[in-house]
Amino acid sequence: MDTIAQEIKTALHEMGRNALIASRVLANLKPEAKNNILNKMADAIDAMSAEIIKANAKDLDAGNKAGLSVAMLDRLRLDEKRVREMSDGLRYVAGLNDPVGRVLSEIERPNGLKIKKISVPLGVIGIIYESRPNVTVDAAGLCLKAGNAVILRGGSEAFNSNMILAKCMNEAGVAAGLPDGAVQLVPYTDRQAISVLLKMDDYISLIIPRGGEGLIRTVVEQSTIPVIKHYKGVCHIYIDAESDLTAALSIVENAKIQRPSACNALETLLVDAKALPKFIEPFLQSMEKHGVELRADERFRKLAPNVKLASEADYYEEYLDLILAVKVVDSIDEAIAHINQYGSKHSDCIVTTNPEHVEKFMAEVDSATVYHNASTRFTDGSEFGMGAEIGISTDKLHARGPMGLEELTSYKYLIFGSGQSRE
Amino acid sequence: MDTIAQEIKTALHEMGRNALIASRVLANLKPEAKNNILNKMADAIDAMSAEIIKANAKDLDAGNKAGLSVAMLDRLRLDEKRVREMSDGLRYVAGLNDPVGRVLSEIERPNGLKIKKISVPLGVIGIIYESRPNVTVDAAGLCLKAGNAVILRGGSEAFNSNMILAKCMNEAGVAAGLPDGAVQLVPYTDRQAISVLLKMDDYISLIIPRGGEGLIRTVVEQSTIPVIKHYKGVCHIYIDAESDLTAALSIVENAKIQRPSACNALETLLVDAKALPKFIEPFLQSMEKHGVELRADERFRKLAPNVKLASEADYYEEYLDLILAVKVVDSIDEAIAHINQYGSKHSDCIVTTNPEHVEKFMAEVDSATVYHNASTRFTDGSEFGMGAEIGISTDKLHARGPMGLEELTSYKYLIFGSGQSRE
Repeated sequence: MDTIAQEIKTALHEMGRNALIASRVLANLKPEAKNNILNKMADAIDAMSAEIIKANAKDLDAGNKAGLSVAMLDRLRLDEKRVREMSDGLRYVAGLNDPVGRVLSEIERPNGLKIKKISVPLGVIGIIYESRPNVTVDAAGLCLKAGNAVILRGGSEAFNSNMILAKCMNEAGVAAGLPDGAVQLVPYTDRQAISVLLKMDDYISLIIPRGGEGLIRTVVEQSTIPVIKHYKGVCHIYIDAESDLTAALSIVENAKIQRPSACNALETLLVDAKALPKFIEPFLQSMEKHGVELRADERFRKLAPNVKLASEADYYEEYLDLILAVKVVDSIDEAIAHINQYGSKHSDCIVTTNPEHVEKFMAEVDSATVYHNASTRFTDGSEFGMGAEIGISTDKLHARGPMGLEELTSYKYLIFGSGQSRE
Repeated sequence: MDTIAQEIKTALHEMGRNALIASRVLANLKPEAKNNILNKMADAIDAMSAEIIKANAKDLDAGNKAGLSVAMLDRLRLDEKRVREMSDGLRYVAGLNDPVGRVLSEIERPNGLKIKKISVPLGVIGIIYESRPNVTVDAAGLCLKAGNAVILRGGSEAFNSNMILAKCMNEAGVAAGLPDGAVQLVPYTDRQAISVLLKMDDYISLIIPRGGEGLIRTVVEQSTIPVIKHYKGVCHIYIDAESDLTAALSIVENAKIQRPSACNALETLLVDAKALPKFIEPFLQSMEKHGVELRADERFRKLAPNVKLASEADYYEEYLDLILAVKVVDSIDEAIAHINQYGSKHSDCIVTTNPEHVEKFMAEVDSATVYHNASTRFTDGSEFGMGAEIGISTDKLHARGPMGLEELTSYKYLIFGSGQSRE
């Protein structure tokens, strides 16, 4: 390891130690103390709005020179409104219920031992993310509210924006009683910093990567710390033979068109062959009107020869765009098999009026969220009543689906005895 | 990769695919169907008892020749009683409550969406373990009861025992309706097989390693699949200045002596300096009587000069033997700091009559199970009322402390709509 790598490693381990120490203080802060800190951070961000936008301009300038795409530059951009959204986000989180100290169960054993299971913070959470600087504030706010220290590692393209946001939160936070080390931004844009971070399992309890599939695969490959993530959202709607086709079309439109760049947007439509003849005309008209490019199988193209042919790869694709893969199926079994094979275990929906089919689809589709007669776009912490969300998990361990504040906690067992020994 | 490595990889991926297919059938088996399968497996094990013991004799023979320690040979040994314990274990698990299909929450959103959160199996679980062949049966039984398929990778020293046990369970299981592929034993004792298994995140949802710290570290280092584990159990008892010293001694005796090889046995005793003068004599007598070797700090040795001096390393040590590290502390804060520094986040206890100290210790000791006035030996699934246990976790993700059947499940969200679209 060269000198610079060693220097990064030493500095990151120091950050880890400090975060762990801070997390032990944070874990026992009262809700009001945490909420006060969050509100003070929000005020500081508002007060520094002009400086934040100035720092962001440097990032935009560098991004322009580096030839970032228009979409990436837009994700990177902060203006007064977006700064205000971040500070308001912190205030909103301050107002949510505290997820720490909930009594999850309480039993008394025949030997008189009282065993209480209560929610506690996870400890230190590492967030690894790409270009959006708002993640710096949103993630820090949620982690702190749940009593966790946080180590943030943002993308190099947002470096100046992230640095000033973290500094701002830290100064205001510490002045309001936040322990030093509770919010730290990794000041190294080097990829090596990520590799070091991912082995710091003595300090960090959980890594949440947010970004493209490539970043997330790198994180999973290297991490010795538990990771919660979703690689992508290849979401399906299956239109059953027996279904209200007007409702079906409206759900498809919402799931595909309302925000195609979201992970819970529709990517593949499965249509039962028996529903197709009546469905196809209004569907084609709507998709054309909304500028959606279709990629369909041969059976669909028999009725719509102008539609592009879908390749095998199309059914694995998360387009995040106004493109929709379409496949004709002969049964609910074929639809379920397709979803379990090609899907990403994220959000999948059946449109049907047949109650047995609802039950079968819900039981057999192996996804985090399974819908009957509603748009997949509802997979979201706020829409699920969690207040806010730090991400969506397609894993099965710890948290599945939208992750809110409760999912940022662990638990511990408190056992109260009166001298009991085991026999 | 050489030819043999490629062959192992191909075979293991085939096992993974089959396990995943089986898991989807298992996930929707009725409780009675699963229980019938478990009972039939138990009967088959009893019926094959003589053959199982014969296969085990081969392993013992090879182990003898390979120079395995007496303790290892004992762990490996099966006799009629131990075979019967395995089959009774399956029958016991069959009688427990089914952990699948529990309604964890149910809400209705203002837009009319009904969101139901229900427990579901994890899918495919990989168990990587060392010499005890009973893990083959115990782990398979718990995984199946929770609706999961299981891939077992036992130690090479128990190969013949594990093979016949897996075959026996499989034949009886499949005859009773178990899907093929639900219980599979990896037939490769090569270490490469573990490396391949740990990258099969397309098929396997969870890895549970059971064995020594070395094995577990290898697993964590290599796995791209979530792992739940504990490295070791460095458990503490802190005797506060204000405490019932008779109760204290009885708790220490039980925690250290009753089964020193268990991970929840006491390894380090912290004694408050103010309690020491009255405590030391009966304590020294008891430890001598029970053959416990002490390793203490200089302050303790001022009063007991014959006791061996503890090194820094002793306080990190899991002896699993009749050895006890001892340290004198001046306050509860010092005790808590010691435990959080040297401990393994497993099981730690305070003996005190001071209620504020109970509260402080419970809040600040960052361990899976924290005790007041009871032996750390109670950290166990059965003792916690879970019926049975597949292991103990010192991680904070998904499961912490003893893991029973509920901890072998995940959840999914079922969302029932009537045509809702997101605004």
